[in-house]
Amino acid sequence: MGENKLKPTILGISGSYGVDSSNSKLVSLALDKIKELGLSTVFWDLSEKPLPLVGSEGSWESSIVKEFQELAESCQGYVLSSPEYHGSMSGVMKNQLDWIYSKHVSGKPFALMSTLGGQSNSNTLNHLRICVRWIHGWAIPEQIAVPNVKTAFDATGKLSDEDLENRLEVLVASLVKTVNLFSE
Amino acid sequence: MGENKLKPTILGISGSYGVDSSNSKLVSLALDKIKELGLSTVFWDLSEKPLPLVGSEGSWESSIVKEFQELAESCQGYVLSSPEYHGSMSGVMKNQLDWIYSKHVSGKPFALMSTLGGQSNSNTLNHLRICVRWIHGWAIPEQIAVPNVKTAFDATGKLSDEDLENRLEVLVASLVKTVNLFSE
Amino acid sequence: MGENKLKPTILGISGSYGVDSSNSKLVSLALDKIKELGLSTVFWDLSEKPLPLVGSEGSWESSIVKEFQELAESCQGYVLSSPEYHGSMSGVMKNQLDWIYSKHVSGKPFALMSTLGGQSNSNTLNHLRICVRWIHGWAIPEQIAVPNVKTAFDATGKLSDEDLENRLEVLVASLVKTVNLFSE
Amino acid sequence: MGENKLKPTILGISGSYGVDSSNSKLVSLALDKIKELGLSTVFWDLSEKPLPLVGSEGSWESSIVKEFQELAESCQGYVLSSPEYHGSMSGVMKNQLDWIYSKHVSGKPFALMSTLGGQSNSNTLNHLRICVRWIHGWAIPEQIAVPNVKTAFDATGKLSDEDLENRLEVLVASLVKTVNLFSE
Repeated sequence: MGENKLKPTILGISGSYGVDSSNSKLVSLALDKIKELGLSTVFWDLSEKPLPLVGSEGSWESSIVKEFQELAESCQGYVLSSPEYHGSMSGVMKNQLDWIYSKHVSGKPFALMSTLGGQSNSNTLNHLRICVRWIHGWAIPEQIAVPNVKTAFDATGKLSDEDLENRLEVLVASLVKTVNLFSE
Repeated sequence: MGENKLKPTILGISGSYGVDSSNSKLVSLALDKIKELGLSTVFWDLSEKPLPLVGSEGSWESSIVKEFQELAESCQGYVLSSPEYHGSMSGVMKNQLDWIYSKHVSGKPFALMSTLGGQSNSNTLNHLRICVRWIHGWAIPEQIAVPNVKTAFDATGKLSDEDLENRLEVLVASLVKTVNLFSE
Repeated sequence: MGENKLKPTILGISGSYGVDSSNSKLVSLALDKIKELGLSTVFWDLSEKPLPLVGSEGSWESSIVKEFQELAESCQGYVLSSPEYHGSMSGVMKNQLDWIYSKHVSGKPFALMSTLGGQSNSNTLNHLRICVRWIHGWAIPEQIAVPNVKTAFDATGKLSDEDLENRLEVLVASLVKTVNLFSE
Repeated sequence: MGENKLKPTILGISGSYGVDSSNSKLVSLALDKIKELGLSTVFWDLSEKPLPLVGSEGSWESSIVKEFQELAESCQGYVLSSPEYHGSMSGVMKNQLDWIYSKHVSGKPFALMSTLGGQSNSNTLNHLRICVRWIHGWAIPEQIAVPNVKTAFDATGKLSDEDLENRLEVLVASLVKTVNLFSE
């Protein structure tokens, strides 16, 4: 990129409320690594700025929705993490995606992550991948499912499982590389 | 069933707000046919009783959630219809499912329907089928996707497409038969 | 059932060649348990009777295909197990399903199983569930994914993992119960 | 690319036997357009070089399999088209994918297409997308499902439906652009 060009910004979206939720922590961990690789980041905190359910009273005039859409449009890449509820992403995650249209994210890369209470599974990652394609995003091949999420983080906030921590590094590096490639 | 046994009740759940939304109309149409076949029905009207997003402020203490869960548990079968947004069910639909656990619906039949703005597709039905299995429900093999939903209903509220109207009859008949079989 | 009625028969289909393959062993284990519960069983041994790929030379006139289809049609329930290759069932399994049409299996119950070389996952089970619906079969809600399949069986041929062995019992009991219910 | 660099080559894979099958024609049509955009192409003709089912007698020593794998490894992008049988790709397509490993295709772009006998649907495209990810390929967001395939081609071999023909152009252009970007 030319020297005068702004750094690309990655938007982090969590499928759970609260910055202390496992998914928000996982997204934040990824964003930290992305910053180390030279990009800007921003995290959408649902607790501060809750998005209304699509079609609920007043939702079509929500200024928070407008802010979310403008932010999504202004970013060059996305990091998503959702809990797996009932074999798919959370309604909280899907409702956020429902407010994003292809005009906001078309042609831009997404990194997908998921957390599970018990053993690992890919349903949420698969459904996220299909949804991302429908809004014409590029879900990169790398992805992570974090099992037994309640004990997944160590005291420093990293993933205790070294293999998963390594896979997170690879995921983030691939996202940054792709965003840079697509932004050239 | 014995004479003193109560009729099984079918719960209708729509993936859109408003009784006038296409999905609510489709659910209501199915419930009408179910009543004609001798079962009781009840429709959950999200506009009257909006369910909070899982994890949003106060959601864990919501009396509406409790009422929804108790209603779900008391019913013997379910009719669902969701719009297809971004290649999957709406966040509104998923959030409702997120509040239902296997202890409420395990072993009970589900009929699945979906509406689309454009041409027909099965993503929402497939994702619904996987979710229903995860809460140990029985999604019956019959299912309906209604394309071009804005012009799908005629003046009397039926489906204009005769083939779809027939498939709806078959869907409802299969659900009722299965509920009766499972309730014996 | 009346005394003169034949016992329902369950057809076992493996997504791997060879009676000694993990999937064939898993299917056979399930069939053994089904027999203990009073039904008849039959296993399709691909090594003895290989089904041609759909459309390959001579495939449309294959007498083995005809025998397979007639057998499928004559059975009242099905037990399937497939390895997970590349995030879905094996081509070997899908090719067998491709030879079965709804006229053979419509309205009849299926029990779904899968094996994995590494950690557990549900992709194959999900894709099987969708395929079974498309031929109008009833995939029961219970299902099993067997991880680390190379060490999954003990010396007696049972599943070493007690929890999985229990889930297999539950799966089989549900299939038999449903077949009996649907055959009444 | 530098002047001495060879042109990237795209491998076409059809989920049906016979160069005259709808899927082979669709793949060939895409390959023709790719050539016009400056890349090399090669089509794997299953009728000439049938791949054995994985695990069938002699399959592990098949020289055709070896040739297929070496060809896949030598190419820089892939065009796939599969019929939708029973809500998923054909066993013929899946068996071809089963012979390809991530070491052959990792990090390389895939364009996905599907044909249907009746109305349009996305199951095959979705399952292909998941499989491609599992072997670490990049399925581009653009994809095509061709409904009513028996009447889909005009006398000149193009798609009769102008909208679909346009989408095919867009699909091919995106694949070529991505292959070039990734090959730089």
